[in-house]
Amino acid sequence: MSDIQQHTIGIILNGVTGRMGSSQHLMRSIVAIRRDGGVRLADGSVIMPRPILVGRNVAKLRRLADEAGLEEISTDLDAVLSDDAYPVYFDAQTTDRRVEAVTAAIQAGKDVYCEKPTALNSADALRLYHLAREAGCKNGVVQDKLFLPGLRKLRRLIDQKFFGRIFAVRGEFGYWVFEGDTTPTQRPSWNSRKEDGGGIILDMFSHWRYVLDNLFGRVRSVCCLGATHIHKRWDESARPFQCTADDSAYAMFELDGDIIVQFNSSWATRVRRDDLLTIQVDGTDGSAVAGLRDCRIQPASATPRPVWNPDVDQPLDFYDGWQDVPEYETYDNAFRAQWEKFLKHVHADEAFPWTLLEGAKCVQLAELATESWEKRRWVDVPPLT
Amino acid sequence: MSDIQQHTIGIILNGVTGRMGSSQHLMRSIVAIRRDGGVRLADGSVIMPRPILVGRNVAKLRRLADEAGLEEISTDLDAVLSDDAYPVYFDAQTTDRRVEAVTAAIQAGKDVYCEKPTALNSADALRLYHLAREAGCKNGVVQDKLFLPGLRKLRRLIDQKFFGRIFAVRGEFGYWVFEGDTTPTQRPSWNSRKEDGGGIILDMFSHWRYVLDNLFGRVRSVCCLGATHIHKRWDESARPFQCTADDSAYAMFELDGDIIVQFNSSWATRVRRDDLLTIQVDGTDGSAVAGLRDCRIQPASATPRPVWNPDVDQPLDFYDGWQDVPEYETYDNAFRAQWEKFLKHVHADEAFPWTLLEGAKCVQLAELATESWEKRRWVDVPPLT
Amino acid sequence: MSDIQQHTIGIILNGVTGRMGSSQHLMRSIVAIRRDGGVRLADGSVIMPRPILVGRNVAKLRRLADEAGLEEISTDLDAVLSDDAYPVYFDAQTTDRRVEAVTAAIQAGKDVYCEKPTALNSADALRLYHLAREAGCKNGVVQDKLFLPGLRKLRRLIDQKFFGRIFAVRGEFGYWVFEGDTTPTQRPSWNSRKEDGGGIILDMFSHWRYVLDNLFGRVRSVCCLGATHIHKRWDESARPFQCTADDSAYAMFELDGDIIVQFNSSWATRVRRDDLLTIQVDGTDGSAVAGLRDCRIQPASATPRPVWNPDVDQPLDFYDGWQDVPEYETYDNAFRAQWEKFLKHVHADEAFPWTLLEGAKCVQLAELATESWEKRRWVDVPPLT
Amino acid sequence: MSDIQQHTIGIILNGVTGRMGSSQHLMRSIVAIRRDGGVRLADGSVIMPRPILVGRNVAKLRRLADEAGLEEISTDLDAVLSDDAYPVYFDAQTTDRRVEAVTAAIQAGKDVYCEKPTALNSADALRLYHLAREAGCKNGVVQDKLFLPGLRKLRRLIDQKFFGRIFAVRGEFGYWVFEGDTTPTQRPSWNSRKEDGGGIILDMFSHWRYVLDNLFGRVRSVCCLGATHIHKRWDESARPFQCTADDSAYAMFELDGDIIVQFNSSWATRVRRDDLLTIQVDGTDGSAVAGLRDCRIQPASATPRPVWNPDVDQPLDFYDGWQDVPEYETYDNAFRAQWEKFLKHVHADEAFPWTLLEGAKCVQLAELATESWEKRRWVDVPPLT
Repeated sequence: MSDIQQHTIGIILNGVTGRMGSSQHLMRSIVAIRRDGGVRLADGSVIMPRPILVGRNVAKLRRLADEAGLEEISTDLDAVLSDDAYPVYFDAQTTDRRVEAVTAAIQAGKDVYCEKPTALNSADALRLYHLAREAGCKNGVVQDKLFLPGLRKLRRLIDQKFFGRIFAVRGEFGYWVFEGDTTPTQRPSWNSRKEDGGGIILDMFSHWRYVLDNLFGRVRSVCCLGATHIHKRWDESARPFQCTADDSAYAMFELDGDIIVQFNSSWATRVRRDDLLTIQVDGTDGSAVAGLRDCRIQPASATPRPVWNPDVDQPLDFYDGWQDVPEYETYDNAFRAQWEKFLKHVHADEAFPWTLLEGAKCVQLAELATESWEKRRWVDVPPLT
Repeated sequence: MSDIQQHTIGIILNGVTGRMGSSQHLMRSIVAIRRDGGVRLADGSVIMPRPILVGRNVAKLRRLADEAGLEEISTDLDAVLSDDAYPVYFDAQTTDRRVEAVTAAIQAGKDVYCEKPTALNSADALRLYHLAREAGCKNGVVQDKLFLPGLRKLRRLIDQKFFGRIFAVRGEFGYWVFEGDTTPTQRPSWNSRKEDGGGIILDMFSHWRYVLDNLFGRVRSVCCLGATHIHKRWDESARPFQCTADDSAYAMFELDGDIIVQFNSSWATRVRRDDLLTIQVDGTDGSAVAGLRDCRIQPASATPRPVWNPDVDQPLDFYDGWQDVPEYETYDNAFRAQWEKFLKHVHADEAFPWTLLEGAKCVQLAELATESWEKRRWVDVPPLT
Repeated sequence: MSDIQQHTIGIILNGVTGRMGSSQHLMRSIVAIRRDGGVRLADGSVIMPRPILVGRNVAKLRRLADEAGLEEISTDLDAVLSDDAYPVYFDAQTTDRRVEAVTAAIQAGKDVYCEKPTALNSADALRLYHLAREAGCKNGVVQDKLFLPGLRKLRRLIDQKFFGRIFAVRGEFGYWVFEGDTTPTQRPSWNSRKEDGGGIILDMFSHWRYVLDNLFGRVRSVCCLGATHIHKRWDESARPFQCTADDSAYAMFELDGDIIVQFNSSWATRVRRDDLLTIQVDGTDGSAVAGLRDCRIQPASATPRPVWNPDVDQPLDFYDGWQDVPEYETYDNAFRAQWEKFLKHVHADEAFPWTLLEGAKCVQLAELATESWEKRRWVDVPPLT
Repeated sequence: MSDIQQHTIGIILNGVTGRMGSSQHLMRSIVAIRRDGGVRLADGSVIMPRPILVGRNVAKLRRLADEAGLEEISTDLDAVLSDDAYPVYFDAQTTDRRVEAVTAAIQAGKDVYCEKPTALNSADALRLYHLAREAGCKNGVVQDKLFLPGLRKLRRLIDQKFFGRIFAVRGEFGYWVFEGDTTPTQRPSWNSRKEDGGGIILDMFSHWRYVLDNLFGRVRSVCCLGATHIHKRWDESARPFQCTADDSAYAMFELDGDIIVQFNSSWATRVRRDDLLTIQVDGTDGSAVAGLRDCRIQPASATPRPVWNPDVDQPLDFYDGWQDVPEYETYDNAFRAQWEKFLKHVHADEAFPWTLLEGAKCVQLAELATESWEKRRWVDVPPLT
């Protein structure tokens, strides 16, 4: 065991006391990697992350560190940024604090990795990217959906040219987020208030951008309609409040390659489909429907030939005639998978295409979708550089 | 049996040698009504339709009449229109011939009933309505989808206020129409040629108009994107041809009552849903998904509370937790059901809201959807009178 | 009805009192075509076959004609051949009588159609073809397996390029033919006697030739091992006899396109597979297993990734992961389907590629397979012209 | 417990750092035997193996020893061979190193046991056997397939004379080995390169020889056709390479007793059968189909009597009518089962028929199969002594 060479990388984890930060980034990624002996490289050596938890509430930090079996915590970000023992900075704070902190980290020469959205508007987001590039800092943005088993199966089908020419994609995301009166809600109340940065377009279109760009083709234009279907909800203190943020968005996208995407996102819909997120891809040679973890396919040769006859019960069961894509590999947690790639990028210079530039594109799409909604027309998506 | 009073109504059936005309209107409606002893009225008497088949090809008319067990045929429309034995005129010709023939029928004082679309543009369609009104002719347009068992169940749910406030509707229509090379196609080739009047918007948006108007609320505006996903098909003589008409349309509608509708129509998609047409309705108190014949509901109180955790297989089966709406009645063929209502309207003056005005609205929506596609923006739907 | 133009074709049916002749050619083909109003042509007119039954046993002929609802029979072949009312001659006699009778029919100027094998050796079979060609007689040979629904589905998969590059084909034909002592046998006893023309190679390799040539590629070489696994059987009179003919044949073929075929035929095997005949096709993009009527496919993207671990029960069910090819059309009886094509060939000159030349190739393969068995080596298959 | 007499046998394990060596021979055999308290003999005493791991990479040896809970390792084979504490030598190196090492072990007076193939050609393999015999060394070769539960059930059926006279055997081995581009492959890349000793004939025909010889009868002659169906694969570094070794082999064998065997082996086929390896045995009184662990039988008295009628769906399900052979005993891992027999042979002189002579026969069959492929004819298999 002692023969294995180990490369320790100090990582500043800022803002991981929140729900996503603590469960996905700290426990299921960094702590899990440490428990499994680090990230193994091709030469047999391993990268071992050494995290320090940074935040504003020392009691919360201490409790989380205990839970994670860690020692190092700090409430003094500036001090930690000037400490060479931590060459990597990670940011999972609320969005409004991100630009300032990431900028400081870049100026301190850190390699930076952060949650999305990277900024409140695309100009700021793009500026962050340019800063990092000029400073020569490696950089990355969380794009976890790409690492969902269901979407990785889609990726493989595309690589295998299963679909022939892809021409249409349909996405359905969402579920019923309870109002919080009789049944506890599943999401924080600020999500439903525009003035607090809430809204499904801002939250989810960042994801749809990198999913579409990476799997199918560059997003060329967008047409979006938002809505606030549920007018009244109850907050964490069981007080009713007026919902001001969009809880649903109906969108169409045009992609390079003349692919048309129709994508619904809603926290006010009841689910009658395979999963909370489903993406149907239609191509000349076959179709697939991916969920978070599963993916079903129907090749052209097995496509049923239905007859329209409402006078009799439909003789075909349209859920038959689809086959599960087999599990060829074990899929790690999506966040951990991307963390491992980022650590290999930092240490061994392996490829990592999901930079702050990609993060800026995500912010851009949410911005343009909102513009489309306001102007009631299609909006083109200009290239970012 | 002989005591039953019988009111015979002579009906001119023009253009029923086609597929829809012969099977739906002649065999499954008029002939079926005759075989079952006519349409029974509240007073116990019956209306007995007495059809005459009118067309251009005498051999075809003769064969069809034989098959239907009928005697009367004619190739001389003018003569039949001037014959008082036939007070009702029905038109199922190709659309380009409809305005002229229906106009003549109105001028001859007939009550008129016809297939949709009633004209090639909404101006002509509206003119037909005004003509009929001024002439005092009763009039109607086929709106068969309203009489589908699945949509009638939706109607009843709405009447029962099952949904609370309805805020969103999602429609999915379509299936894979084979290209015709290795597997026989299911639709005539002219459907795929713009120059021959083909296109899914022209064909289906007429239906979506009356479905939305009647079930949910007046269509206020439309945003539509059409596409020709399949570029090459094979015609009835197995010759390849270029597709010029739209085979798919992605649309959003806003309805009175702030209801948002997202509706996909496609002849180039593989079906992984309950039926060839499904309509999901989301309301504050519950949701429903209707197919052609079935309808499933999920009340608020039975709505599951899913957790987003892609690290484990989804523990919920989202197809459970929906209940079938029971079959409280036997549903007749949709075309026949509307025929019976029209005959009662003609004879007994019962209500029949699906007039030529409604037909004009249907043409209007297809027209405006096309305009929206061209202009890449939302288009408002002005009231027709 | 009386408007439909009808073309009557007189057909001499010689030797249809046997099992295959009476059930497949007479009852399920000619009689069925007559009952359904003839073979419909593109112009709306129909071909109506008018058969005369010819044979040696007048009582048998009379009985069969009664059963078939026919009038005309004869025991004088020469007389019938010289009668211009019958321009088509069909032969389903035992193989040893075929060459003489078909030769006479050609000399009488008939178009000829016949059962396989067309002769006892390929030289005779080829001579028949040349005779017919020189005489300008249309000609055809029964190749019914091509019209099996399962093989037609295979054909469509090939046309759809479902398989990518096909490299391997495995055929399994056969079942247990009972010895005839305690359980009645399913086949005539002469099948088991070499001296009476029996043997599975002679019987079945004719079929495999046209199946392979037509579906996959020209047969280039053959390696065959025959065997008489069951030594003793009981004949129609319950008398035991020594089996002298091969009841099983194990063969490999090489086809154009570097496709390798491995094909077992046996009347001494117990069936644990989908059907009495199964053909597995393996290609780079997918595989299929066709039976007589069904066909299952597995695309590359749904191919499971098994692990070899005999210490635990196999976790995969290898019968899952295959999808039925849908029934896109209704398949007629295979013999009738080919009869209809031959009649259209005779009357309307439609294409009919299954000529006496193809019949000669079938005889050739049986001949060369036998030679391979004797010489214990691969034998090349020279082109026939 | 302490009363049990224990006979320790020192065993040199050479080359067990590879996949098969470490998992099957070390962990599941030697370590498992040790953990279970040794191999119990009839007199109640036990044989306790005491292994020393020998190899070239000390780090790998150390890691493997740790994992196995062992102490002794060495990189000096000569030293270990001259150490009397280890009377048994086991070889699982790559084939090209085996002859030299086993020869040295024999010369050092060790009893030898080794993996197959025992040499690169049958002359060398036979020479090893003669050397061992002359030196009086006990010797054995791994023939694990014989100890598969499925094949042991076959063995018992044969012993029970279930089959009557066996006349035919059909083997199907193989599955889809992924190319390694989009889906990870299941086998090392050298398997696909002739120049690195790859090829399915070399790998698998060794197994088929001892399976056939032991279960059914001596292999008398072979006819084999090899093929490289997949032309391009991706290696361990994701680099594409040209495949030069055979990935499929279609073979026929004749055995003593006039049994005909048809055996397909392929790494380029999709599996629609019971298991990765299936062997069907047909006999006059019954048939069986064995997989790796299961075995199904159909006695003559339960054999269905199918009817050939492609006009209707086959009324018989040919997977019914077979019965599972019950599990009368618990089957150990196949490698362990043979190890135990070898240890009893060494210590207690119990019978062990799977000597180096049998190993030489296995090499011989692969050799002659390749010759048959090249010469395109049957090749006889001369006896080895």
